[in-house]
Amino acid sequence: MKSRVGVGIVGFGTVGTGVARILLDNAGLIRRRVGVPVELIRIADLDVARDRGLSLPAGMLTQDSRQVLDDPDVDIVVELIGGYEVAKHLILEAIAKGKQVVTANKALLAVHGEELYQAASRQKVDLAFEASVGGGIPIIRALTEGLAANRILSIYGIINGTSNYILTRMTQEGLAFEEVLEESKRAGYAEADPTFDVEGIDSVHKLAIMVSLAYGTPVDVKDIYTEGITKLTPLDIAYAKEFGYVIKLLGIAKLMEGEIEARVHPTMIPVSSPIAQVHGVYNAIQVVGDAVGDVMLHGQGAGSMPTGSAVVSDILSIARNLVTGGVGRVPAASFQPDQRRPLRVRPMADIESLYYLRFMVVDRPGVLSQIAGVLGQHGISISSVLQQGRKEGQTVPVVIRTHQAAERSVQTALRKIGRMSFVSEPPMLIRVEGPDE
Amino acid sequence: MKSRVGVGIVGFGTVGTGVARILLDNAGLIRRRVGVPVELIRIADLDVARDRGLSLPAGMLTQDSRQVLDDPDVDIVVELIGGYEVAKHLILEAIAKGKQVVTANKALLAVHGEELYQAASRQKVDLAFEASVGGGIPIIRALTEGLAANRILSIYGIINGTSNYILTRMTQEGLAFEEVLEESKRAGYAEADPTFDVEGIDSVHKLAIMVSLAYGTPVDVKDIYTEGITKLTPLDIAYAKEFGYVIKLLGIAKLMEGEIEARVHPTMIPVSSPIAQVHGVYNAIQVVGDAVGDVMLHGQGAGSMPTGSAVVSDILSIARNLVTGGVGRVPAASFQPDQRRPLRVRPMADIESLYYLRFMVVDRPGVLSQIAGVLGQHGISISSVLQQGRKEGQTVPVVIRTHQAAERSVQTALRKIGRMSFVSEPPMLIRVEGPDE
Repeated sequence: MKSRVGVGIVGFGTVGTGVARILLDNAGLIRRRVGVPVELIRIADLDVARDRGLSLPAGMLTQDSRQVLDDPDVDIVVELIGGYEVAKHLILEAIAKGKQVVTANKALLAVHGEELYQAASRQKVDLAFEASVGGGIPIIRALTEGLAANRILSIYGIINGTSNYILTRMTQEGLAFEEVLEESKRAGYAEADPTFDVEGIDSVHKLAIMVSLAYGTPVDVKDIYTEGITKLTPLDIAYAKEFGYVIKLLGIAKLMEGEIEARVHPTMIPVSSPIAQVHGVYNAIQVVGDAVGDVMLHGQGAGSMPTGSAVVSDILSIARNLVTGGVGRVPAASFQPDQRRPLRVRPMADIESLYYLRFMVVDRPGVLSQIAGVLGQHGISISSVLQQGRKEGQTVPVVIRTHQAAERSVQTALRKIGRMSFVSEPPMLIRVEGPDE
Repeated sequence: MKSRVGVGIVGFGTVGTGVARILLDNAGLIRRRVGVPVELIRIADLDVARDRGLSLPAGMLTQDSRQVLDDPDVDIVVELIGGYEVAKHLILEAIAKGKQVVTANKALLAVHGEELYQAASRQKVDLAFEASVGGGIPIIRALTEGLAANRILSIYGIINGTSNYILTRMTQEGLAFEEVLEESKRAGYAEADPTFDVEGIDSVHKLAIMVSLAYGTPVDVKDIYTEGITKLTPLDIAYAKEFGYVIKLLGIAKLMEGEIEARVHPTMIPVSSPIAQVHGVYNAIQVVGDAVGDVMLHGQGAGSMPTGSAVVSDILSIARNLVTGGVGRVPAASFQPDQRRPLRVRPMADIESLYYLRFMVVDRPGVLSQIAGVLGQHGISISSVLQQGRKEGQTVPVVIRTHQAAERSVQTALRKIGRMSFVSEPPMLIRVEGPDE
């Protein structure tokens, strides 16, 4: 039996600092749980000068990641450098050396996960990544262990804190996207280049990881439809409220007749649903299983200590495996390597949904009937129409909600309507999740 | 390596039926995750005649639990008979035979957990009980694994669905407790004898289990203050609303200067807090950790399939341990057997809280000043007073909210005030959790 477990960290930024702090501050607690000390052996980062508010033993911090990989006392390598190529090679090399690996790198897992999962399985080491989705929320463990007896019917995730913060402020204060974005940058809630967050790319990475674990299938992120929040307006948020909805950027996955629906886009959800109450930088993931029904996990989706908590939970889990001999008990990809089955991700045009459609039209007689006519020709059934304020000859919004309709038909109809002479700007489409009333 | 894992169930009631159904329906999925078949071998129940809507192989169902215990193909014994003595002996015997054990029996664990945890550790077998708290919500795993790197600062749990259903209806419809209780019995949401649920006893059992796992301490349930929801009135619920609170029956645990606060009672919480949004039969547990911050898990806290989901998640976890050799990786009590430390549960009189106090008084000059005087004498600082409607000589409510105050002082003051001539009924006290404003 191992008498201690050694940890090496590569990448000593925000999350790395949180991980080191937890390992040092809670060393006694961790030892009481695991049975042996879990010791921080070595940390590698190019910046060895910066004061991170931690007092580390001399020689622990190095610029050379090789000193982590080559140290025989390092049982678990924690990759926190981010990015693709360097991180991937680091992980593959650690696996090749028979070391256990923990990473928080969602972009890497979403794009190169298969290669890494297979390498870990072949080498019979653990590869864990609780921190890759939802920060401190133990959602990976829920999918791979706590809810593992369930056929997962659907996943709805608010999995990007920046977007949720912006949407929350737009909703609560009626502000425009650009305005909140600029303020968020100044306050540190959004990065200087916020593309990954507000265009849904970060959410797609996290959704791809969850789909892969929930359904036991490889996922190509390029197959997941992705739409960000940049086009949302206070007007649409106000209409949503009027209809009893809020707008959230959701990562959605559903099991549909042996295929997977997987998509990231702004979504109207009933204000009474639990994930509608998730505000600010919080994340939440609702999972619906065939046995358990709906379960929601809610917490801080980012930050040094919450994400560090998730990384250290993986370190503990692996340490427990090393001590008792349980390494490999949960494969990195959750399903046994020979038991994964490629499932088709249904093309976006083939999905069905409820829709909110907003048209800016010149207010004159016959406009509504022409719009309704095109929708009808494409088999799209209207559940309600809202046309507020009459301003003959001026531009006014016409808002239409549909019953369940085919995405392909809706897109075709919108293109036709968008070309009509009385339409003054491209139609707005927001998908709606909830009961078809 | 084991080529299959055998499961035996003792107790074929609501939860047992859910467990069997999941094992049968999702056998393929479970095999793909675990790597070997997880097979239902034998089920024991006195009632072998009832149709449970499952088609079982001939001979699987027996009246004799010994046939489960003695079957060499049964690796995991699932105890679902409930109650204390028979269940305890069954589990101890299974452990003595070297079998792994899964149970959903919160009452047994709360009262005899220590004996069972120690027996499992000595015999080096797994004893798992995800289903004992929060039904399908993976809260046990969150405490023992997902958040295991954290010093747990507090736990707030809505962990009894019957009480939450009754409180939700009282809140939404302004109904009296007795009225909703009777309706709930008729609708099957409350048992014929609802004492365990509405008096907080079931919640205390679940809280005791969580405290034990979170803090690594044995807990005597008798040390946990317990107050149910039977005295709550629509009037107090209406006042709560006016102050921006809702009333929930909470199980509360806090780490306070090396001691534990643990208590179950109706609690006013800000309507904006995530657990305030937990309605009907749903359960939710908020855990605050020193690293992760606040995490909430929300889901169905009871029922055949949700609870069955939790039981089968334990079966999977143990099956994975049996296959890879990781049995014992997480001790039943979460901490290593020699690393648990008895922590004192602080007597209720020694806690501090915010308080909502309601006095029914004869409306005459000087009443408020006498009440305020007694509170002042006991060092209780008032944050707000509400006395609505003047009805000289008639009985009216006086509602007082306090700043942080000592429970002992508040109780003493209430006894004094309760004896005053103008007070027409025993004062109402509801503890408040939230910022002291």
